[in-house]
Amino acid sequence: MGFGGTRFSRKDVPVEQELAASVGDLLRSTPGISRDDIDAVLVATNDNAVYLSAILAELAGISPRIAHTVENLCSSGTNAIVSGAAYVASGLAETVLVAGADRFDSPGQVLSWDRSRGEFGRPVFWASMFASAYKREFGVSDEDLACVPVKNRRNAADNPRAYPDAEVTIQDVLDSRELTGDLRLYECSRPCTGACAVLLASESAARGLAETPVWIRGIGQKTTSASFAGSRDLTRMESTALAARDALSMAGTDPGGIDVTEVHDAFGVCEPLALEDLGFADKGSGARLSKDLLETGDRSVNPRGGLIGAGHPLGATGVAQTAEIVSQLQGRSGRRQVQGARRGLVHNMSAAATSSTVLVMGS
Amino acid sequence: MGFGGTRFSRKDVPVEQELAASVGDLLRSTPGISRDDIDAVLVATNDNAVYLSAILAELAGISPRIAHTVENLCSSGTNAIVSGAAYVASGLAETVLVAGADRFDSPGQVLSWDRSRGEFGRPVFWASMFASAYKREFGVSDEDLACVPVKNRRNAADNPRAYPDAEVTIQDVLDSRELTGDLRLYECSRPCTGACAVLLASESAARGLAETPVWIRGIGQKTTSASFAGSRDLTRMESTALAARDALSMAGTDPGGIDVTEVHDAFGVCEPLALEDLGFADKGSGARLSKDLLETGDRSVNPRGGLIGAGHPLGATGVAQTAEIVSQLQGRSGRRQVQGARRGLVHNMSAAATSSTVLVMGS
Repeated sequence: MGFGGTRFSRKDVPVEQELAASVGDLLRSTPGISRDDIDAVLVATNDNAVYLSAILAELAGISPRIAHTVENLCSSGTNAIVSGAAYVASGLAETVLVAGADRFDSPGQVLSWDRSRGEFGRPVFWASMFASAYKREFGVSDEDLACVPVKNRRNAADNPRAYPDAEVTIQDVLDSRELTGDLRLYECSRPCTGACAVLLASESAARGLAETPVWIRGIGQKTTSASFAGSRDLTRMESTALAARDALSMAGTDPGGIDVTEVHDAFGVCEPLALEDLGFADKGSGARLSKDLLETGDRSVNPRGGLIGAGHPLGATGVAQTAEIVSQLQGRSGRRQVQGARRGLVHNMSAAATSSTVLVMGS
Repeated sequence: MGFGGTRFSRKDVPVEQELAASVGDLLRSTPGISRDDIDAVLVATNDNAVYLSAILAELAGISPRIAHTVENLCSSGTNAIVSGAAYVASGLAETVLVAGADRFDSPGQVLSWDRSRGEFGRPVFWASMFASAYKREFGVSDEDLACVPVKNRRNAADNPRAYPDAEVTIQDVLDSRELTGDLRLYECSRPCTGACAVLLASESAARGLAETPVWIRGIGQKTTSASFAGSRDLTRMESTALAARDALSMAGTDPGGIDVTEVHDAFGVCEPLALEDLGFADKGSGARLSKDLLETGDRSVNPRGGLIGAGHPLGATGVAQTAEIVSQLQGRSGRRQVQGARRGLVHNMSAAATSSTVLVMGS
């Protein structure tokens, strides 16, 4: 599995340009690939532009058989990757290029369809409800939760494709602008412009393209609803738990068998919740795990910096998470490298965890 | 394969409402299906709304594993169907619901990305160039081409889901408003609001759902470019020819083995061009075939009325074409029925035939 990407930024450029740059980077870093061998081009985005896969194909000099755009808010990227995996597994394609991109002003950032949210259509409001419930239920403090952005921004400092920013301390997080009673500015992922691309291939095609191919071993997805309305346990992300169960079972492993993980920390509180629902920590102890990882300098969760550290160009995020796990399993992550990582997990979700994708990957 | 849909119209309603209505219709007409058995919900649309698959799933009472939106302009519908087929063939899903919808004011109707088109960003301009070249190259007259809308509007009169409109005569077509030097109003498909849904299932699941299941036997897709710029033969739709070759080969048949066909007549001239590139007529004789079908009352091409007769709500079109072939192969098409039809073909394309999908289906 090859990959390429752009540095996440605040650039005011069209998604077409970012997509083409990420694919150019991928093609340059995958010398064995010929454009004629690419059977499918899938674009993951929330951008309102149409016919983006055909446009990207033409810009990149590819004439694929299969080409379309995939959209599912913040998990568009992994939805396109799972589609690509289905095309390969079905025999309809040998090689699939998946490229995700969005701009800093992506329309996917407002949950405009859910009138039950009243004035609270921005994701920060559901995240705030999660943070409030989590702190109350498990006696977690603001200081505990502040460990997540501190750790992930520290990891991002070693990721040359991350949205550039200074590292922060726990005190900086606590002092940052209060957006709601339970969430501060530094606890939020940042909208930005960026793209990332990965190349999926069948077993025979992959062996010709990479010395150490990385395989998708398990896939789990679940959509529980679209709206936030109705009763639900605000300290549990059910779609994540169900997707993780299926992905780990398909891969024939359990959380203990995973060496490195990208989790969807759209907001700080999402990391401990995800660590718990993925099975890495008991309920209520995810924040403790994030804090331990910070204190021991352990890079095994969100080594590229997560969404908080790297930035969150919606359609690019799931693809960038997957590319990071590929890089880790190939031992190419430099100062971010988790030594000896052989199995990795990607967790990508949308809209208050009303849907989730979990991928288990192995070298 | 079950199906359901709304009547195409000028209704000013959200796509969510049309999608939910088409799925309600499908579920009512597929008594064997349980909502719990639906593994994937794919939406095909050009609408700018986000997270539509999760919204549709919630409206329909479904909690799927896989859910996202697929966009590829006018062939969004068949792109979603091919994705659904890939999920089933890969084993990632047993049952996939595909629903396509657009509104009369869909943003997919302007080819806004191709600056090489100058002021001519609306599809009517490329269609006009096709018509001009086709008439010049093969000595075809305006009267010959006018047979296509006459035939397809006649067929649509027997399709209860078609955009309602009076039948027309050849003279009516010739007298209708001239949009360009080579295209008149009645030669154009009409933007409208509508939705259609189909249910794909694995062999074992399908046998439990339908007395006479219809199978996808062949799939072909090709994207040659995105832009209209550059030299090309204006009387040939290369992506269609390549997709047809692959789909017929996969199905182990040839054009002579097809009993009923839906072709993408976005404009009148597209029908003869498609009939030629699909292999049903020699180059230059497609218009003669359309005229013969009109004169003999033969329904085997565009029995539901095509895009010109039925209307063209972009994301719904490829799904509605597929549903019509299912209906024909199950002998459920009433006055539109092609007697004894056992094999059918769907041809769906985008943007001046820069990309095409061809499906071959069999009972």
